[in-house]
Amino acid sequence: MSLVLYERLCSDDRRPSPYCWRARLALAHKGLTPELRGIKFTEASKVAFSGQGKVPVLCDGERTVPDSWAIALYLEAAYPEAPSLFRGEGGQALARFINHWVDSRLQKAIAPILAPRMLALALPEDRAYYRETREPRYGCSLEELAAQRDRHLAALGPLLEPLRLRLAESPYLCGESPAYADYLAFAEFQWARCAEPDDLLGPDDDAIRAWRSRLLDRFDGLARSVPAYDSAA
Amino acid sequence: MSLVLYERLCSDDRRPSPYCWRARLALAHKGLTPELRGIKFTEASKVAFSGQGKVPVLCDGERTVPDSWAIALYLEAAYPEAPSLFRGEGGQALARFINHWVDSRLQKAIAPILAPRMLALALPEDRAYYRETREPRYGCSLEELAAQRDRHLAALGPLLEPLRLRLAESPYLCGESPAYADYLAFAEFQWARCAEPDDLLGPDDDAIRAWRSRLLDRFDGLARSVPAYDSAA
Repeated sequence: MSLVLYERLCSDDRRPSPYCWRARLALAHKGLTPELRGIKFTEASKVAFSGQGKVPVLCDGERTVPDSWAIALYLEAAYPEAPSLFRGEGGQALARFINHWVDSRLQKAIAPILAPRMLALALPEDRAYYRETREPRYGCSLEELAAQRDRHLAALGPLLEPLRLRLAESPYLCGESPAYADYLAFAEFQWARCAEPDDLLGPDDDAIRAWRSRLLDRFDGLARSVPAYDSAA
Repeated sequence: MSLVLYERLCSDDRRPSPYCWRARLALAHKGLTPELRGIKFTEASKVAFSGQGKVPVLCDGERTVPDSWAIALYLEAAYPEAPSLFRGEGGQALARFINHWVDSRLQKAIAPILAPRMLALALPEDRAYYRETREPRYGCSLEELAAQRDRHLAALGPLLEPLRLRLAESPYLCGESPAYADYLAFAEFQWARCAEPDDLLGPDDDAIRAWRSRLLDRFDGLARSVPAYDSAA
């Protein structure tokens, strides 16, 4: 059966989308290697067959699944013999809470730092689209957003506290080995690594850094193998 | 076998401690009804037998367990036939992340709103101790803290977003029925209900309000039955 993952494509073959990294790592967790198809910001029509225009979209034989959370649920149900993404009913319910925490808090703090970098990372033909869709989100130009970088960096630190505390006592959020909740949070740092030359972590973040490094090594170095900045490796 | 829970005692027989409510609800989840022994802020020596001075402390026959998380782990291991507090290995690992999220983010946002109220709620003989231990934490007098109330209330709103999103799609954080992660977050609102006449939730918080109300009803209305303000019921 053919397995295809449609994901965001940027310049220099970079694949920064954190939503797509959730799916990439969930597939790797299940021992699956999809064919990857890069989709530019302005190529929503290429995944319109999925009933919407966003990536990731997973095609598994006849089955089409858009949305990173739906992909995780699909993989868990379709590949029950492979290692679990959630490790039980309680793990699945709380992974969903962490999904919302990442979306509404962690990503909301990281995105204004990365968005100005993403303008340069987008393919030249995507940059006007990127600017037009992102600037209303922040209520200012991407250049003005870049000028607020220090403020956004300062806001990120306290927000990482639950990660910092959990990873000070356990190698992964999910315990002795990683599972989907780890990929949810890690994907934000993988996004940063693709887009951002500086490490966004601070001097107190050694536990988060060590966790990030372990996840970069996971699956034969899958996340480490892609074009990215090395500073956050 | 005797089962005793030592918990914080305040005036009018109020029991506001969120840490103690975690233990109360974990015990109820396991179908256990402990004898409750109230401990004043200045009575740390009364639980010194546990090797430390904080509450909650659970005594189950010969076994003494301080610390709310340790109590949850103990109950899960000691009463495996009763409903699980975590619903699997994944649920336990992520409940610990949520424990850290509650401690470092939710409670950090709620505590400066409630601390000035707690001064009046503490027993008269505890008030000097409460002031002496809390004011250094906030770097100002409790009266100055009370004057910053609006700012702290405004900071609470965005922080609740992961709860708001999760509870918009599910009756409980843990799914169709509550488990320990629900009690972790709910205990902060139960603290507020004991100490604070106003509801801290806003106009967009109906899903959180409905969840809170369901948890107040749980276990034959255990959390609703204690002396508290009705505004947040």
